[in-house]
Amino acid sequence: MRNEFQADLRAVNDLLVTMTTAVQIAMADATTALLAADRDLAAAVAGRDADVNALRDRVEDLVLVTIARQAPVAGDLRALFVAAQVATDVERMGDLAAHVARMTLRYHPRPTVPADLRALFVRIGRAADGMAAKAVQVLAEPDAATAAELERDDDLMDGLHQELLTAILDRKPPLDVATGVQLVLLARFYERFADHAVNAGHRTVFRLTGTTVH
Amino acid sequence: MRNEFQADLRAVNDLLVTMTTAVQIAMADATTALLAADRDLAAAVAGRDADVNALRDRVEDLVLVTIARQAPVAGDLRALFVAAQVATDVERMGDLAAHVARMTLRYHPRPTVPADLRALFVRIGRAADGMAAKAVQVLAEPDAATAAELERDDDLMDGLHQELLTAILDRKPPLDVATGVQLVLLARFYERFADHAVNAGHRTVFRLTGTTVH
Repeated sequence: MRNEFQADLRAVNDLLVTMTTAVQIAMADATTALLAADRDLAAAVAGRDADVNALRDRVEDLVLVTIARQAPVAGDLRALFVAAQVATDVERMGDLAAHVARMTLRYHPRPTVPADLRALFVRIGRAADGMAAKAVQVLAEPDAATAAELERDDDLMDGLHQELLTAILDRKPPLDVATGVQLVLLARFYERFADHAVNAGHRTVFRLTGTTVH
Repeated sequence: MRNEFQADLRAVNDLLVTMTTAVQIAMADATTALLAADRDLAAAVAGRDADVNALRDRVEDLVLVTIARQAPVAGDLRALFVAAQVATDVERMGDLAAHVARMTLRYHPRPTVPADLRALFVRIGRAADGMAAKAVQVLAEPDAATAAELERDDDLMDGLHQELLTAILDRKPPLDVATGVQLVLLARFYERFADHAVNAGHRTVFRLTGTTVH
């Protein structure tokens, strides 16, 4: 029974690692597509989002089946419960990568990011990628220190987000409203992606210690 | 045991109804504060968000304790599991109401919404309020028809959102970028609030029937 439970928990966790790796790749590809105005790559990212949603459904099903069959308590129950919450966060990260991709599709072949703001988007994309990689790492090898690192990375992401907002609003000559609006929405997609990566880390720490990080 | 379980489930559900009513009021007040540039009301909404977060924590704790104590299976387990997911959606609705309130605070005493776009925000606020009210109703009295109504309401909300984006981008004379950006973010907060209300309805139908609505 105990071994069976551990195997089920491992299966859930493997699905989460697969899911999170998929959304890391999705956001990296979405960033590449955005900066290269690459229509095919953007369409591929948007299309693959359904796979992430299907993985989320599989995590939820497996969690429910495992709780029902094994009636786990205390830490075991919490681990399963948290896994389902992490799946929701990661599924949302996938949505946000798809949003970035669809923004590229909508304005193709016009580049969405003006030349002078590309460097900032490169940094934002890199920060998002690094945070998704750490979320994968925390899931594969739960570790409170890496989860705490995600918090610090998120402060950097918030700083980049603020820097971008200022650059958009203070730009000379001013951006037209349509471009400003697109860029701010893009910035928000990356910022929310990062928030969900932090949530995944938070919840993993909660799973380990039963206390939430604030 | 069975009666005890039913009592626990009712307690969870009562908390969800309380939470969802709180976020309905929060968004209604946030809208009033936005349109009246009412600093005190906006600050009150932002301050009350912590109560919603605390309610979400109580729902999660009660769900875990109930699963551990009662080891429910099948529909009972699903009902508890879904309640925790709904709590996450509703907590996020509270965040979004607080975002609207903080937008009002940031630009006070300057009104955030230009006079000619106010009527559209009134309609968006009313749509959000109606959807939150229906989410409360579905939770208090689970009913697939009301959950389905939420889907249709969301199409109306998406239509209003689109109408607002067009109004922002096509406005003559053009809006300055800062105002355009604020308004688009505000519009997104309402749209996401509505999406989470729909999710709450979706999940409630799933709780009743075991099938998801797409």
